[in-house]
Amino acid sequence: MADLWQNAMDHAVAAARRAGQVVREALLDDRKVMTKSSSVDLVTQTDQKVEQLIIQSVKEKFPTHRFIGEESVAAGEPCILTDDPTWIVDPIDGTTNFVHAFPFVAVSIGFSVNKQMEFGVVFSCLEDKMFTARRGSGAFCNGEPLQVSGQKDIQRSIIATEFGSNRDPEVVDKMFSSLRNVLCIPVHGMRGAGTAAINMCLVASGCVEAYYEIGMHVWDLAASSLIVSEAGGVLMDVEGGAADLMSRRIVAANNRTIAERIVKEIHPFAPPRDDAPPLQQ
Amino acid sequence: MADLWQNAMDHAVAAARRAGQVVREALLDDRKVMTKSSSVDLVTQTDQKVEQLIIQSVKEKFPTHRFIGEESVAAGEPCILTDDPTWIVDPIDGTTNFVHAFPFVAVSIGFSVNKQMEFGVVFSCLEDKMFTARRGSGAFCNGEPLQVSGQKDIQRSIIATEFGSNRDPEVVDKMFSSLRNVLCIPVHGMRGAGTAAINMCLVASGCVEAYYEIGMHVWDLAASSLIVSEAGGVLMDVEGGAADLMSRRIVAANNRTIAERIVKEIHPFAPPRDDAPPLQQ
Repeated sequence: MADLWQNAMDHAVAAARRAGQVVREALLDDRKVMTKSSSVDLVTQTDQKVEQLIIQSVKEKFPTHRFIGEESVAAGEPCILTDDPTWIVDPIDGTTNFVHAFPFVAVSIGFSVNKQMEFGVVFSCLEDKMFTARRGSGAFCNGEPLQVSGQKDIQRSIIATEFGSNRDPEVVDKMFSSLRNVLCIPVHGMRGAGTAAINMCLVASGCVEAYYEIGMHVWDLAASSLIVSEAGGVLMDVEGGAADLMSRRIVAANNRTIAERIVKEIHPFAPPRDDAPPLQQ
Repeated sequence: MADLWQNAMDHAVAAARRAGQVVREALLDDRKVMTKSSSVDLVTQTDQKVEQLIIQSVKEKFPTHRFIGEESVAAGEPCILTDDPTWIVDPIDGTTNFVHAFPFVAVSIGFSVNKQMEFGVVFSCLEDKMFTARRGSGAFCNGEPLQVSGQKDIQRSIIATEFGSNRDPEVVDKMFSSLRNVLCIPVHGMRGAGTAAINMCLVASGCVEAYYEIGMHVWDLAASSLIVSEAGGVLMDVEGGAADLMSRRIVAANNRTIAERIVKEIHPFAPPRDDAPPLQQ
Protein backbone atom coordinates (compact mmCIF):
# COMPACT_ATOMS: atom_id res chain seq x y z
CA MET A 1 0.00 0.00 0.00
CA ALA A 2 2.85 2.36 0.89
CA ASP A 3 4.08 2.25 -2.70
CA LEU A 4 0.67 2.60 -4.30
CA TRP A 5 1.42 6.05 -5.70
CA GLN A 6 5.21 5.79 -5.88
CA ASN A 7 5.25 5.44 -9.67
CA ALA A 8 3.02 8.51 -9.95
CA MET A 9 5.38 10.42 -7.68
CA ASP A 10 8.41 9.32 -9.72
CA HIS A 11 6.60 10.57 -12.79
CA ALA A 12 5.88 13.90 -11.08
CA VAL A 13 9.53 14.40 -10.16
CA ALA A 14 10.67 13.67 -13.71
CA ALA A 15 7.95 15.91 -15.17
CA ALA A 16 8.85 18.76 -12.79
CA ARG A 17 12.51 18.49 -13.76
CA ARG A 18 11.68 18.56 -17.49
CA ALA A 19 9.29 21.45 -16.95
CA GLY A 20 11.91 23.33 -14.93
CA GLN A 21 14.34 22.92 -17.79
CA VAL A 22 11.85 24.49 -20.22
CA VAL A 23 11.22 27.37 -17.78
CA ARG A 24 14.94 27.91 -17.31
CA GLU A 25 15.65 27.92 -21.03
CA ALA A 26 12.73 30.26 -21.75
CA LEU A 27 14.01 32.59 -19.07
CA LEU A 28 17.69 32.55 -19.94
CA ASP A 29 17.38 32.41 -23.75
CA ASP A 30 14.20 34.30 -24.59
CA ARG A 31 14.77 36.98 -21.99
CA LYS A 32 17.74 38.25 -23.95
CA VAL A 33 15.52 39.13 -26.89
CA MET A 34 12.50 40.13 -24.79
CA THR A 35 11.06 43.57 -25.43
CA LYS A 36 8.94 45.49 -23.01
CA SER A 37 5.71 44.49 -24.71
CA SER A 38 6.61 40.84 -25.12
CA SER A 39 7.34 39.91 -21.51
CA VAL A 40 3.70 39.18 -20.69
CA ASP A 41 3.42 37.04 -23.84
CA LEU A 42 6.53 35.11 -22.88
CA VAL A 43 5.23 34.27 -19.44
CA THR A 44 1.78 33.32 -20.76
CA GLN A 45 3.22 31.16 -23.51
CA THR A 46 5.69 29.43 -21.21
CA ASP A 47 3.03 28.91 -18.52
CA GLN A 48 0.68 27.25 -21.03
CA LYS A 49 3.42 25.25 -22.71
CA VAL A 50 4.74 23.88 -19.41
CA GLU A 51 1.28 23.03 -18.07
CA GLN A 52 0.44 21.16 -21.29
CA LEU A 53 3.77 19.35 -21.15
CA ILE A 54 3.05 18.12 -17.62
CA ILE A 55 -0.63 17.28 -18.19
CA GLN A 56 -0.03 15.46 -21.48
CA SER A 57 2.71 13.30 -20.01
CA VAL A 58 0.50 12.39 -17.04
CA LYS A 59 -2.52 11.64 -19.27
CA GLU A 60 -0.50 9.16 -21.31
CA LYS A 61 0.52 7.26 -18.21
CA PHE A 62 -2.54 7.76 -15.98
CA PRO A 63 -5.46 8.25 -18.38
CA THR A 64 -8.18 8.18 -15.69
CA HIS A 65 -6.68 10.85 -13.43
CA ARG A 66 -8.11 14.34 -13.13
CA PHE A 67 -6.35 17.73 -13.18
CA ILE A 68 -6.53 21.16 -11.63
CA GLY A 69 -4.08 23.46 -13.37
CA GLU A 70 -3.65 27.22 -13.18
CA GLU A 71 -3.84 27.67 -16.94
CA SER A 72 -6.67 25.16 -17.41
CA VAL A 73 -8.76 26.95 -14.77
CA ALA A 74 -7.96 30.28 -16.42
CA ALA A 75 -9.27 28.71 -19.65
CA GLY A 76 -12.58 27.81 -17.97
CA GLU A 77 -12.01 24.28 -16.61
CA PRO A 78 -13.61 23.61 -13.21
CA CYS A 79 -11.55 23.87 -10.02
CA ILE A 80 -13.26 21.24 -7.91
CA LEU A 81 -11.43 18.67 -5.82
CA THR A 82 -13.16 15.26 -5.95
CA ASP A 83 -12.17 11.92 -4.40
CA ASP A 84 -10.57 10.90 -7.72
CA PRO A 85 -6.81 10.89 -8.09
CA THR A 86 -6.10 14.53 -9.03
CA TRP A 87 -2.95 16.30 -10.16
CA ILE A 88 -2.83 19.92 -9.02
CA VAL A 89 -0.36 21.81 -11.18
CA ASP A 90 1.19 25.27 -11.16
CA PRO A 91 3.52 25.36 -14.17
CA ILE A 92 5.27 28.58 -13.02
CA ASP A 93 4.81 29.81 -9.46
CA GLY A 94 6.42 33.23 -9.33
CA THR A 95 5.56 34.62 -12.76
CA THR A 96 6.69 38.13 -11.77
CA ASN A 97 10.02 36.65 -10.69
CA PHE A 98 10.15 34.75 -13.98
CA VAL A 99 9.74 37.93 -16.05
CA HIS A 100 12.54 39.59 -14.10
CA ALA A 101 14.81 36.53 -13.68
CA PHE A 102 14.51 37.00 -9.92
CA PRO A 103 16.04 33.80 -8.59
CA PHE A 104 12.90 32.09 -7.16
CA VAL A 105 10.74 30.38 -9.79
CA ALA A 106 9.00 27.05 -9.09
CA VAL A 107 7.14 24.25 -10.83
CA SER A 108 4.58 22.82 -8.41
CA ILE A 109 2.87 19.42 -8.76
CA GLY A 110 0.62 18.09 -6.01
CA PHE A 111 -1.37 14.86 -6.10
CA SER A 112 -4.50 14.19 -4.08
CA VAL A 113 -6.69 11.10 -3.58
CA ASN A 114 -9.89 11.17 -1.51
CA LYS A 115 -9.22 14.90 -1.07
CA GLN A 116 -6.00 14.12 0.79
CA MET A 117 -2.56 15.06 -0.53
CA GLU A 118 -0.56 11.90 -1.31
CA PHE A 119 2.61 13.57 -2.58
CA GLY A 120 3.96 17.00 -3.43
CA VAL A 121 6.81 18.08 -5.69
CA VAL A 122 8.15 21.67 -5.89
CA PHE A 123 11.09 22.27 -8.21
CA SER A 124 12.85 25.60 -7.61
CA CYS A 125 14.35 25.55 -11.05
CA LEU A 126 16.81 28.48 -10.90
CA GLU A 127 18.22 27.24 -7.59
CA ASP A 128 18.10 23.63 -8.85
CA LYS A 129 16.38 22.48 -5.65
CA MET A 130 13.89 19.60 -5.89
CA PHE A 131 11.58 19.57 -2.87
CA THR A 132 9.53 16.39 -2.43
CA ALA A 133 7.20 14.87 0.15
CA ARG A 134 5.25 11.61 0.27
CA ARG A 135 2.47 11.33 2.86
CA GLY A 136 3.86 9.61 5.96
CA SER A 137 7.41 9.42 4.62
CA GLY A 138 8.90 12.87 5.33
CA ALA A 139 10.01 15.79 3.18
CA PHE A 140 13.26 16.19 1.27
CA CYS A 141 15.31 18.68 -0.74
CA ASN A 142 17.54 17.07 -3.35
CA GLY A 143 17.26 13.89 -1.31
CA GLU A 144 18.27 15.47 2.03
CA PRO A 145 15.62 15.29 4.78
CA LEU A 146 13.92 18.57 5.71
CA GLN A 147 13.02 19.66 9.22
CA VAL A 148 11.22 22.84 10.27
CA SER A 149 12.92 25.27 12.67
CA GLY A 150 12.79 24.38 16.37
CA GLN A 151 12.26 28.04 17.32
CA LYS A 152 9.32 28.73 19.69
CA ASP A 153 10.08 32.40 20.37
CA ILE A 154 8.27 34.62 17.84
CA GLN A 155 10.75 37.44 18.52
CA ARG A 156 13.58 35.27 17.21
CA SER A 157 11.65 34.26 14.11
CA ILE A 158 11.64 35.29 10.45
CA ILE A 159 8.18 35.43 8.90
CA ALA A 160 7.53 35.26 5.15
CA THR A 161 4.61 36.90 3.39
CA GLU A 162 3.82 38.64 0.10
CA PHE A 163 2.23 41.90 -0.97
CA GLY A 164 0.19 39.97 -3.58
CA SER A 165 -1.19 41.54 -6.72
CA ASN A 166 -4.45 43.06 -5.41
CA ARG A 167 -4.16 46.88 -5.15
CA ASP A 168 -7.76 47.49 -3.97
CA PRO A 169 -7.25 50.06 -1.16
CA GLU A 170 -9.33 48.05 1.33
CA VAL A 171 -7.27 44.93 0.68
CA VAL A 172 -4.02 46.92 0.85
CA ASP A 173 -5.19 48.46 4.17
CA LYS A 174 -5.72 45.03 5.72
CA MET A 175 -2.55 43.58 4.24
CA PHE A 176 -0.41 46.47 5.55
CA SER A 177 -2.11 46.37 8.94
CA SER A 178 -1.30 42.65 9.31
CA LEU A 179 2.23 43.24 8.08
CA ARG A 180 2.91 46.00 10.56
CA ASN A 181 1.36 44.04 13.44
CA VAL A 182 3.56 41.03 12.73
CA LEU A 183 6.73 43.11 12.14
CA CYS A 184 6.24 45.05 15.38
CA ILE A 185 5.61 42.02 17.61
CA PRO A 186 8.63 42.47 16.99
CA VAL A 187 9.93 39.59 14.88
CA HIS A 188 13.53 39.10 13.81
CA GLY A 189 12.72 39.92 10.19
CA MET A 190 10.26 39.55 7.34
CA ARG A 191 10.96 38.11 3.91
CA GLY A 192 9.13 37.09 0.75
CA ALA A 193 10.50 34.96 -2.07
CA GLY A 194 7.79 36.09 -4.49
CA THR A 195 6.28 32.60 -4.77
CA ALA A 196 3.96 30.86 -2.31
CA ALA A 197 5.38 27.42 -3.10
CA ILE A 198 8.95 28.48 -2.30
CA ASN A 199 7.88 30.45 0.80
CA MET A 200 6.27 27.20 2.02
CA CYS A 201 9.48 25.27 1.22
CA LEU A 202 11.47 27.87 3.19
CA VAL A 203 9.24 27.01 6.19
CA ALA A 204 9.88 23.29 5.59
CA SER A 205 13.65 23.97 5.36
CA GLY A 206 13.76 25.90 8.64
CA CYS A 207 14.95 29.12 6.90
CA VAL A 208 11.82 31.00 8.03
CA GLU A 209 9.61 30.06 10.96
CA ALA A 210 6.32 30.84 9.23
CA TYR A 211 4.59 32.07 6.09
CA TYR A 212 1.14 33.60 5.87
CA GLU A 213 -0.80 35.03 2.95
CA ILE A 214 -4.30 35.72 1.72
CA GLY A 215 -4.91 35.58 -2.02
CA MET A 216 -2.83 32.77 -3.46
CA HIS A 217 -4.45 29.68 -5.05
CA VAL A 218 -4.77 25.94 -4.45
CA TRP A 219 -2.19 25.18 -7.18
CA ASP A 220 0.38 27.33 -5.32
CA LEU A 221 -0.17 25.40 -2.08
CA ALA A 222 -1.21 21.84 -2.83
CA ALA A 223 2.25 20.31 -3.23
CA SER A 224 4.02 22.55 -0.72
CA SER A 225 1.38 22.02 2.00
CA LEU A 226 2.42 18.36 2.22
CA ILE A 227 6.11 19.36 2.16
CA VAL A 228 5.51 21.61 5.20
CA SER A 229 3.54 19.03 7.18
CA GLU A 230 5.94 16.19 6.35
CA ALA A 231 8.83 18.41 7.52
CA GLY A 232 7.07 18.65 10.89
CA GLY A 233 5.24 21.95 10.35
CA VAL A 234 1.62 22.94 10.90
CA LEU A 235 -1.00 24.47 8.59
CA MET A 236 -3.76 26.73 9.83
CA ASP A 237 -6.37 29.14 8.51
CA VAL A 238 -5.56 32.84 9.03
CA GLU A 239 -8.37 32.96 11.64
CA GLY A 240 -7.12 29.77 13.33
CA GLY A 241 -8.88 26.45 12.74
CA ALA A 242 -8.16 23.99 9.98
CA ALA A 243 -6.41 25.10 6.81
CA ASP A 244 -8.56 24.87 3.68
CA LEU A 245 -6.53 24.79 0.46
CA MET A 246 -9.47 26.12 -1.59
CA SER A 247 -9.96 29.16 0.69
CA ARG A 248 -6.97 31.13 -0.66
CA ARG A 249 -5.73 31.74 2.90
CA ILE A 250 -2.90 30.05 4.78
CA VAL A 251 -0.65 30.17 7.80
CA ALA A 252 2.17 27.62 7.57
CA ALA A 253 4.51 27.46 10.53
CA ASN A 254 7.16 25.41 12.25
CA ASN A 255 4.87 24.79 15.23
CA ARG A 256 1.46 25.63 16.70
CA THR A 257 2.83 28.29 19.09
CA ILE A 258 4.22 30.41 16.26
CA ALA A 259 1.18 29.82 14.02
CA GLU A 260 -1.28 30.89 16.73
CA ARG A 261 0.77 33.98 17.59
CA ILE A 262 0.66 35.11 13.96
CA VAL A 263 -3.07 34.43 13.65
CA LYS A 264 -3.64 37.01 16.42
CA GLU A 265 -2.04 39.73 14.26
CA ILE A 266 -3.73 39.09 10.91
CA HIS A 267 -6.63 41.23 9.70
CA PRO A 268 -8.53 38.53 7.83
CA PHE A 269 -10.55 38.88 4.67
CA ALA A 270 -12.00 36.30 2.29
CA PRO A 271 -11.26 36.43 -1.43
CA PRO A 272 -13.57 34.37 -3.70
CA ARG A 273 -12.80 30.68 -3.12
CA ASP A 274 -11.00 28.68 -5.80
CA ASP A 275 -13.91 26.22 -5.92
CA ALA A 276 -16.64 28.89 -6.02
CA PRO A 277 -19.11 28.37 -8.88
CA PRO A 278 -18.35 30.68 -11.82
CA LEU A 279 -20.25 33.97 -11.83
CA GLN A 280 -23.34 34.09 -14.08
CA GLN A 281 -22.52 35.91 -17.28
CA MET B 1 47.59 53.14 -14.68
CA ALA B 2 44.59 50.93 -15.42
CA ASP B 3 46.21 48.05 -13.53
CA LEU B 4 47.36 50.13 -10.57
CA TRP B 5 44.97 48.43 -8.14
CA GLN B 6 44.54 45.13 -9.98
CA ASN B 7 46.68 43.19 -7.49
CA ALA B 8 44.65 44.64 -4.61
CA MET B 9 41.45 43.61 -6.39
CA ASP B 10 42.77 40.09 -6.99
CA HIS B 11 43.56 39.92 -3.30
CA ALA B 12 40.03 41.10 -2.42
CA VAL B 13 38.43 38.41 -4.60
CA ALA B 14 40.56 35.69 -3.02
CA ALA B 15 39.91 37.04 0.51
CA ALA B 16 36.14 37.23 -0.14
CA ARG B 17 36.11 33.64 -1.36
CA ARG B 18 38.04 32.40 1.69
CA ALA B 19 35.81 34.45 3.99
CA GLY B 20 32.70 33.07 2.27
CA GLN B 21 33.97 29.57 2.88
CA VAL B 22 34.30 30.32 6.62
CA VAL B 23 30.80 31.82 6.69
CA ARG B 24 29.37 28.85 4.83
CA GLU B 25 31.03 26.32 7.12
CA ALA B 26 29.97 28.21 10.26
CA LEU B 27 26.44 28.26 8.96
CA LEU B 28 26.17 24.68 7.77
CA ASP B 29 28.21 23.01 10.54
CA ASP B 30 27.63 25.10 13.64
CA ARG B 31 23.98 25.70 12.94
CA LYS B 32 23.25 22.03 13.54
CA VAL B 33 24.37 22.33 17.15
CA MET B 34 23.12 25.90 17.64
CA THR B 35 20.78 26.46 20.56
CA LYS B 36 18.38 29.35 20.88
CA SER B 37 20.70 31.32 23.13
CA SER B 38 23.84 30.67 21.11
CA SER B 39 22.74 31.97 17.71
CA VAL B 40 23.68 35.57 18.52
CA ASP B 41 27.08 34.42 19.76
CA LEU B 42 27.64 32.43 16.59
CA VAL B 43 26.93 35.40 14.36
CA THR B 44 29.08 37.75 16.46
CA GLN B 45 31.97 35.31 16.58
CA THR B 46 31.81 34.55 12.87
CA ASP B 47 31.48 38.25 12.00
CA GLN B 48 34.58 39.13 14.03
CA LYS B 49 36.55 36.11 12.84
CA VAL B 50 35.84 36.83 9.17
CA GLU B 51 36.61 40.55 9.47
CA GLN B 52 39.92 39.79 11.17
CA LEU B 53 40.73 37.18 8.53
CA ILE B 54 40.20 39.74 5.75
CA ILE B 55 41.92 42.67 7.48
CA GLN B 56 44.97 40.63 8.59
CA SER B 57 45.53 39.25 5.10
CA VAL B 58 45.31 42.76 3.61
CA LYS B 59 47.62 44.27 6.24
CA GLU B 60 50.32 41.73 5.41
CA LYS B 61 50.22 42.65 1.74
CA PHE B 62 49.32 46.36 1.91
CA PRO B 63 50.64 47.57 5.28
CA THR B 64 49.95 51.28 4.66
CA HIS B 65 46.28 50.90 3.73
CA ARG B 66 43.44 51.92 6.02
CA PHE B 67 40.23 50.08 6.96
CA ILE B 68 36.60 50.70 7.74
CA GLY B 69 35.01 47.50 8.98
CA GLU B 70 31.63 46.87 10.57
CA GLU B 71 33.11 45.05 13.55
CA SER B 72 36.04 47.47 13.96
CA VAL B 73 33.65 50.44 14.03
CA ALA B 74 31.46 48.58 16.55
CA ALA B 75 34.62 48.20 18.65
CA GLY B 76 35.25 51.97 18.59
CA GLU B 77 37.46 52.52 15.52
CA PRO B 78 36.66 55.70 13.56
CA CYS B 79 34.49 55.55 10.44
CA ILE B 80 36.05 58.36 8.41
CA LEU B 81 36.86 58.11 4.73
CA THR B 82 40.15 59.85 3.89
CA ASP B 83 42.06 60.11 0.59
CA ASP B 84 44.22 57.14 1.63
CA PRO B 85 43.66 53.75 0.05
CA THR B 86 40.87 52.31 2.27
CA TRP B 87 39.30 48.87 2.46
CA ILE B 88 35.63 49.01 3.46
CA VAL B 89 34.59 45.61 4.77
CA ASP B 90 31.35 43.96 5.81
CA PRO B 91 32.27 40.42 6.85
CA ILE B 92 28.63 39.20 6.85
CA ASP B 93 25.93 41.31 5.21
CA GLY B 94 22.64 39.68 6.12
CA THR B 95 23.29 38.50 9.67
CA THR B 96 19.60 37.71 10.24
CA ASN B 97 19.67 35.58 7.09
CA PHE B 98 22.86 33.96 8.36
CA VAL B 99 21.25 32.94 11.66
CA HIS B 100 18.32 31.40 9.79
CA ALA B 101 20.27 29.98 6.82
CA PHE B 102 18.09 32.13 4.54
CA PRO B 103 19.88 31.81 1.22
CA PHE B 104 21.26 35.38 0.84
CA VAL B 105 24.43 36.04 2.85
CA ALA B 106 27.25 38.21 1.47
CA VAL B 107 30.85 39.15 2.16
CA SER B 108 31.40 42.72 0.95
CA ILE B 109 34.81 44.32 0.26
CA GLY B 110 35.05 47.79 -1.27
CA PHE B 111 38.23 49.76 -1.93
CA SER B 112 38.44 53.51 -2.17
CA VAL B 113 41.25 55.94 -3.08
CA ASN B 114 40.82 59.73 -2.95
CA LYS B 115 37.30 59.02 -1.66
CA GLN B 116 36.41 57.30 -4.94
CA MET B 117 35.58 53.61 -5.19
CA GLU B 118 38.24 51.80 -7.22
CA PHE B 119 36.82 48.30 -7.01
CA GLY B 120 34.04 46.38 -5.28
CA VAL B 121 33.66 42.69 -4.51
CA VAL B 122 30.46 41.10 -3.15
CA PHE B 123 30.47 37.34 -2.64
CA SER B 124 26.99 35.83 -2.19
CA CYS B 125 28.42 32.78 -0.50
CA LEU B 126 25.38 30.49 -0.28
CA GLU B 127 24.53 31.10 -3.94
CA ASP B 128 28.23 30.90 -4.86
CA LYS B 129 27.99 34.13 -6.88
CA MET B 130 31.04 36.39 -6.99
CA PHE B 131 30.07 39.93 -8.02
CA THR B 132 32.96 42.20 -8.99
CA ALA B 133 33.48 45.66 -10.47
CA ARG B 134 36.59 47.69 -11.29
CA ARG B 135 36.10 51.41 -11.92
CA GLY B 136 35.78 51.99 -15.67
CA SER B 137 35.87 48.30 -16.54
CA GLY B 138 32.32 47.05 -15.98
CA ALA B 139 30.66 44.73 -13.50
CA PHE B 140 30.61 40.94 -13.51
CA CYS B 141 29.04 37.94 -11.80
CA ASN B 142 31.24 34.83 -11.87
CA GLY B 143 33.01 36.44 -14.82
CA GLU B 144 29.83 37.13 -16.86
CA PRO B 145 29.18 40.83 -17.61
CA LEU B 146 26.28 42.44 -15.73
CA GLN B 147 23.82 44.91 -17.20
CA VAL B 148 20.98 46.68 -15.42
CA SER B 149 17.41 46.22 -16.68
CA GLY B 150 16.37 48.33 -19.67
CA GLN B 151 12.91 48.92 -18.19
CA LYS B 152 11.75 52.57 -18.11
CA ASP B 153 8.14 51.94 -17.05
CA ILE B 154 7.87 51.95 -13.25
CA GLN B 155 4.65 49.94 -13.47
CA ARG B 156 6.55 47.05 -15.02
CA SER B 157 9.31 47.22 -12.42
CA ILE B 158 10.22 45.22 -9.32
CA ILE B 159 11.54 47.35 -6.47
CA ALA B 160 13.64 45.99 -3.59
CA THR B 161 13.67 47.43 -0.09
CA GLU B 162 13.94 46.22 3.51
CA PHE B 163 12.01 46.71 6.74
CA GLY B 164 15.32 47.28 8.54
CA SER B 165 15.79 46.70 12.25
CA ASN B 166 14.50 50.00 13.70
CA ARG B 167 11.07 49.52 15.34
CA ASP B 168 10.68 53.14 16.57
CA PRO B 169 7.02 53.90 15.68
CA GLU B 170 7.94 57.17 13.88
CA VAL B 171 10.51 55.37 11.73
CA VAL B 172 8.09 52.50 11.07
CA ASP B 173 5.39 55.05 10.07
CA LYS B 174 7.67 56.63 7.48
CA MET B 175 8.99 53.30 6.24
CA PHE B 176 5.48 51.89 5.76
CA SER B 177 4.25 55.09 4.15
CA SER B 178 7.07 54.95 1.57
CA LEU B 179 6.48 51.24 1.03
CA ARG B 180 2.78 51.68 0.38
CA ASN B 181 3.35 54.67 -1.91
CA VAL B 182 5.82 52.72 -4.04
CA LEU B 183 3.72 49.53 -4.08
CA CYS B 184 0.59 51.42 -5.14
CA ILE B 185 2.20 53.41 -7.97
CA PRO B 186 1.54 50.47 -8.77
CA VAL B 187 4.75 48.55 -9.38
CA HIS B 188 4.97 44.98 -10.63
CA GLY B 189 6.19 43.74 -7.26
CA MET B 190 8.39 44.39 -4.26
CA ARG B 191 11.14 42.16 -2.91
CA GLY B 192 13.90 42.19 -0.32
CA ALA B 193 16.81 39.79 -0.10
CA GLY B 194 17.56 40.74 3.50
CA THR B 195 20.97 42.21 2.62
CA ALA B 196 21.72 45.61 1.12
CA ALA B 197 24.74 44.33 -0.80
CA ILE B 198 22.74 41.60 -2.54
CA ASN B 199 19.78 43.92 -3.19
CA MET B 200 22.28 46.23 -4.96
CA CYS B 201 23.66 43.27 -6.94
CA LEU B 202 20.08 42.35 -7.95
CA VAL B 203 19.80 45.87 -9.43
CA ALA B 204 23.12 45.37 -11.24
CA SER B 205 21.93 41.98 -12.54
CA GLY B 206 18.66 43.38 -13.92
CA CYS B 207 16.54 41.18 -11.60
CA VAL B 208 15.02 44.23 -9.91
CA GLU B 209 14.81 47.72 -11.39
CA ALA B 210 15.65 49.55 -8.17
CA TYR B 211 16.47 49.28 -4.49
CA TYR B 212 15.96 51.97 -1.86
CA GLU B 213 16.55 51.99 1.87
CA ILE B 214 17.25 54.27 4.81
CA GLY B 215 19.31 52.88 7.66
CA MET B 216 21.99 50.64 6.22
CA HIS B 217 25.73 51.49 6.52
CA VAL B 218 28.68 52.43 4.31
CA TRP B 219 30.15 48.91 4.59
CA ASP B 220 26.91 47.47 3.15
CA LEU B 221 27.06 49.77 0.14
CA ALA B 222 30.66 50.63 -0.69
CA ALA B 223 31.47 47.61 -2.86
CA SER B 224 28.00 47.18 -4.33
CA SER B 225 27.65 50.88 -5.26
CA LEU B 226 30.44 50.46 -7.80
CA ILE B 227 28.88 47.19 -9.04
CA VAL B 228 25.62 49.07 -9.72
CA SER B 229 27.25 51.99 -11.49
CA GLU B 230 29.59 49.79 -13.55
CA ALA B 231 26.54 47.72 -14.62
CA GLY B 232 25.04 50.94 -16.01
CA GLY B 233 22.87 51.92 -13.05
CA VAL B 234 22.48 55.18 -11.16
CA LEU B 235 22.82 56.07 -7.47
CA MET B 236 20.85 58.85 -5.84
CA ASP B 237 19.95 60.15 -2.41
CA VAL B 238 16.39 59.38 -1.25
CA GLU B 239 15.59 63.11 -1.67
CA GLY B 240 17.23 63.23 -5.10
CA GLY B 241 20.68 64.72 -5.55
CA ALA B 242 23.98 62.93 -5.24
CA ALA B 243 24.24 59.71 -3.27
CA ASP B 244 26.38 59.94 -0.15
CA LEU B 245 27.59 56.56 1.09
CA MET B 246 28.05 57.88 4.66
CA SER B 247 24.46 59.19 4.86
CA ARG B 248 22.84 55.75 5.39
CA ARG B 249 20.34 56.48 2.59
CA ILE B 250 20.30 55.19 -0.97
CA VAL B 251 18.30 54.83 -4.14
CA ALA B 252 20.02 52.55 -6.66
CA ALA B 253 18.23 52.09 -9.97
CA ASN B 254 18.62 50.90 -13.52
CA ASN B 255 18.15 54.45 -14.84
CA ARG B 256 17.40 58.02 -13.79
CA THR B 257 13.70 57.84 -14.77
CA ILE B 258 13.01 54.99 -12.35
CA ALA B 259 15.20 56.49 -9.59
CA GLU B 260 13.46 59.87 -9.77
CA ARG B 261 10.00 58.27 -9.77
CA ILE B 262 10.83 56.39 -6.57
CA VAL B 263 12.31 59.48 -4.88
CA LYS B 264 8.87 61.12 -5.23
CA GLU B 265 7.28 58.41 -3.07
CA ILE B 266 9.80 58.19 -0.23
CA HIS B 267 9.15 59.84 3.14
CA PRO B 268 12.73 60.75 3.98
CA PHE B 269 14.37 60.80 7.37
CA ALA B 270 18.00 61.06 8.42
CA PRO B 271 19.58 58.50 10.75
CA PRO B 272 22.88 59.49 12.40
CA ARG B 273 25.60 59.50 9.70
CA ASP B 274 28.23 56.78 9.70
CA ASP B 275 30.97 59.44 9.90
CA ALA B 276 29.30 61.45 12.68
CA PRO B 277 31.63 62.16 15.62
CA PRO B 278 30.94 59.78 18.52
CA LEU B 279 28.53 61.11 21.17
CA GLN B 280 30.15 62.65 24.27
CA GLN B 281 30.02 60.15 27.12
